Amino acid sequence: MYYPEVRYDIDYDRSRQRWNGWGAEDQDLILQDRLPRIFDFLAKELGVSPLPETPSVALEEIRLPESRLVQRDIRELEKIVGQANVKTDHRERVLHSFGQSFADIIRLRTNMARAFTDAVVYPGDERELTRILELCTRRKIATIAFGGGSSVVGGLEALCHSSHSGVVTIDLFRLSGLIELNEEARCATFHAGTYGPVLERELNARGYTLGHFPQSFEYSTIGGWVAARSAGQQSNRYGKIEKILTSLRMVTPAGLMETLRVPAAATGPDWNQIVAGSEGLLGIITRVTVKVHRLPEARCYFALVFPDFEKARGFLKSATGAGHGLSMIRLSDSTETRLYETLASLAHSGLSGAAKAALQASVLRVFGQPAGQRCLVTAGFDGDRDRIDRESISLRSLMRRFDGFYAGQRAGENWLRTRFNMPFLRNHVVERGIGIDTMETATTYDRVESLHEAVLSEVARVAGPSTVMCHLSHSYHEGACLYFTVIYLMDQRDPLAQWRRIKSAASEAIVANGGNISHHHGVGLDHKPYYERQTGELALSGLRAMKRELDPRGILNPSKLFG
Amino acid sequence: MYYPEVRYDIDYDRSRQRWNGWGAEDQDLILQDRLPRIFDFLAKELGVSPLPETPSVALEEIRLPESRLVQRDIRELEKIVGQANVKTDHRERVLHSFGQSFADIIRLRTNMARAFTDAVVYPGDERELTRILELCTRRKIATIAFGGGSSVVGGLEALCHSSHSGVVTIDLFRLSGLIELNEEARCATFHAGTYGPVLERELNARGYTLGHFPQSFEYSTIGGWVAARSAGQQSNRYGKIEKILTSLRMVTPAGLMETLRVPAAATGPDWNQIVAGSEGLLGIITRVTVKVHRLPEARCYFALVFPDFEKARGFLKSATGAGHGLSMIRLSDSTETRLYETLASLAHSGLSGAAKAALQASVLRVFGQPAGQRCLVTAGFDGDRDRIDRESISLRSLMRRFDGFYAGQRAGENWLRTRFNMPFLRNHVVERGIGIDTMETATTYDRVESLHEAVLSEVARVAGPSTVMCHLSHSYHEGACLYFTVIYLMDQRDPLAQWRRIKSAASEAIVANGGNISHHHGVGLDHKPYYERQTGELALSGLRAMKRELDPRGILNPSKLFG
Repeated sequence: MYYPEVRYDIDYDRSRQRWNGWGAEDQDLILQDRLPRIFDFLAKELGVSPLPETPSVALEEIRLPESRLVQRDIRELEKIVGQANVKTDHRERVLHSFGQSFADIIRLRTNMARAFTDAVVYPGDERELTRILELCTRRKIATIAFGGGSSVVGGLEALCHSSHSGVVTIDLFRLSGLIELNEEARCATFHAGTYGPVLERELNARGYTLGHFPQSFEYSTIGGWVAARSAGQQSNRYGKIEKILTSLRMVTPAGLMETLRVPAAATGPDWNQIVAGSEGLLGIITRVTVKVHRLPEARCYFALVFPDFEKARGFLKSATGAGHGLSMIRLSDSTETRLYETLASLAHSGLSGAAKAALQASVLRVFGQPAGQRCLVTAGFDGDRDRIDRESISLRSLMRRFDGFYAGQRAGENWLRTRFNMPFLRNHVVERGIGIDTMETATTYDRVESLHEAVLSEVARVAGPSTVMCHLSHSYHEGACLYFTVIYLMDQRDPLAQWRRIKSAASEAIVANGGNISHHHGVGLDHKPYYERQTGELALSGLRAMKRELDPRGILNPSKLFG
Repeated sequence: MYYPEVRYDIDYDRSRQRWNGWGAEDQDLILQDRLPRIFDFLAKELGVSPLPETPSVALEEIRLPESRLVQRDIRELEKIVGQANVKTDHRERVLHSFGQSFADIIRLRTNMARAFTDAVVYPGDERELTRILELCTRRKIATIAFGGGSSVVGGLEALCHSSHSGVVTIDLFRLSGLIELNEEARCATFHAGTYGPVLERELNARGYTLGHFPQSFEYSTIGGWVAARSAGQQSNRYGKIEKILTSLRMVTPAGLMETLRVPAAATGPDWNQIVAGSEGLLGIITRVTVKVHRLPEARCYFALVFPDFEKARGFLKSATGAGHGLSMIRLSDSTETRLYETLASLAHSGLSGAAKAALQASVLRVFGQPAGQRCLVTAGFDGDRDRIDRESISLRSLMRRFDGFYAGQRAGENWLRTRFNMPFLRNHVVERGIGIDTMETATTYDRVESLHEAVLSEVARVAGPSTVMCHLSHSYHEGACLYFTVIYLMDQRDPLAQWRRIKSAASEAIVANGGNISHHHGVGLDHKPYYERQTGELALSGLRAMKRELDPRGILNPSKLFG
């Protein structure tokens, strides 16, 4: 297969998925044997020794309320999709009631979760889905679409209003696979429930790729990508999913909607861009047509080192849109750089020792910068070999203008190899009292520095023993995404309150410094108050009025986004 | 100035604008002295000699109904904007009641126009605009925003429902100029009424360009570009206006709306992409923030010739997105190629005689293709000199794979020089019984040939003596824009009915072959029935519900688009 770092053979059967963590039960961290050393390092980093043992409750211990659905509704659902495709057992209800936000994980592991779905239904086609929505509209049952279940913003939480007669989660597992590859039009149509690796396997076998690799890639679906405006790690080349999107179909309580398969239009508001990001509030996406690309002849991923954040940021801005055709460029701030270097050395990989020493020496010698200031840039090309060679030379010449050093391909390759790995690390560290959460935003280049500093200091202020770091990724003509990671010692007395303090401090700092509340995670429940402030009452009322036409009884994913 | 073909000094004073044709009264066709020879050629092409004389009625003859506005409303408008900024005279009312669609021109010139605006008001700022909309909402007066007045789809026609108490056209002439150039964020904010040349003058003086050059560039405004989803001729490099757009402000009857200045977002439906293309139905755009680029070091525009349409189309598709960084690439079908060659020779410019002869000979010799099949491709680069040189070599090697020939820079330069010129030609030919209209669409590559053939044959079927031709422009990863031009002998008994037959034949053929009803002209009145069919009742009802929130009494541009 073209992408050696992709696990194409994951078993997505619901009985194999972790209910309180990331991934399928037989999938884990690649560098699992290095875990003890990682724990030692984190203990030192957070100043606590030994790390506590903080095991999760067992699945059986989760306190689940009785299903609110009456038997007649269950029977009707079974009539639509068949008895085997309606689930009300303990495991299925727990698994489908939450996503992968850190708040979700905390609540499940500590048995603090309260809202659970009442049934899970697996439609086999659009016709069945339509009938499910008709039934739920008639009976005013809240419905939540479930793709890969990887929402990190509370988008899947099984909430409903008191006027609803319960919650049904609609799992799109059976709506999977390639419908059509149109080579002449360079696009392909997939069922919405197609997982990343399944999609790439279908395309790769025919010589194509989508090129969309969010960190959640292994456990997220194309319908979910569109519904939440996902960004892939190579978005510099391939675009965010809303740019990759050519057309779609969506089933709503008021009927089917389909957009035209055209490359561009001047025909009123763009429905693709209304549905993208609608997070299941306007309808349930069933088919997505996307741009596809011939598998690139070659790829080349590498690392550069700059003396400080400002210079690295200047390089990133200049390199973006300069015509080099970079697939990705990602700048780690000095804290993240230091952590990556340490983790890489723990894992006996990353920069070679000699390269690192040489670099370090050069940086120190030439610029007199403390080593702690230096910033790592990871970047990559995909494409024709000749073009990559040509553009690499040109990019390195730009790099020198910002006092950067070439640090070789090994770190780039290592990044590729482990790029879907981080969420598995969280599964392990939460067992030892350590929390990891991420917050992301986008802003224009003029505001990057102030936003960066504000979030670092605000989060550090409220998190307790912690390390806060950031990288810029997904860079654009006018700005970039800032992606923050906080690693902290969980307050075992009330980890949820602590998480809320951290989330709120980061979000307020983002909003105050001209960033939006999400660049690619979505809004869901966690970002809703900030989204509302940034969108404004008038725009919200417009969206709500539109929703009422498509979803007259308000059954679609209540309480999230503008709902 | 950087763009020598741009007339930066046009006088936009309303007293200087043509009321029944294109442009300011002291601006005309560049090659005006070649007109007699152009007429001779067109007479031969259409098989009619001599061409009839078909003068327009005089402005004074236009039958204008009494203004429906009561004096109290006029007084109130005057109170808001000052007496000098409310106009009800004959010329202002005629000038503001139509755009530049060929149907508009026919109706004005033959005194068939019926619907006229009742008053024209020129707000000086957002506060005044807000008060105008409040007044018009209170009094249920229809309002139509007027930027450059260049709509070619009936977007400006002064229509209202019987429940309205009249029509006020809001001319944004006074909302003009640069508000801020943010060099760090590489974007600039303009008042919505800023004309193309004014905008470029402001940016060029500071070393920047927007790079957005629709054919209407000299007579259209940035607000109008966004409202109608305009495409510039260099959209391969700079993008359509909805991609160039970073944020905007809009005044609605229900209040002010503003989007965040961020490069990308995962925060629900994209309001930039809801307002873009809304054609004045949701609100009146007042400020637009757009990506700007450093003025390129060099540019290089040139022509290539291919043996037939299929090969040229294959080249265009391969060249698009191959990383060459083309600013534009435009493929004329064989009929358009023949006409351009003839017009160029009439104008003693274009390809040099020797180059043409050599090309013709090569094409004939090597491929045995009849000369009448050959297709011209015009393409261009803007950027660093080195990169242009490098990419030109790479592009020519691609060209050879499709049996193309390099035809030199002269035709490219000539295209640049005359690119805003065509609408002026129409002013002249309508005086001699000749109609020119254009229709455009976009579709995926797999449908280009069938759509092309269908439109050519359907238009030829209904147009009478005519020449129908097409070029592909604005190419994308999955498809391209097809831009059709029909030159025909006007039926002097009923030119409007004839125009409707042509428009309808083209539109039906476009829709039947998977094209959208507009790629960059917009919907307005002329495309409305096709837009409605292609959008579907559910999506339309969603948009109408949204509109009711922003415009509760339905005063904004009634009867257009989804109104």
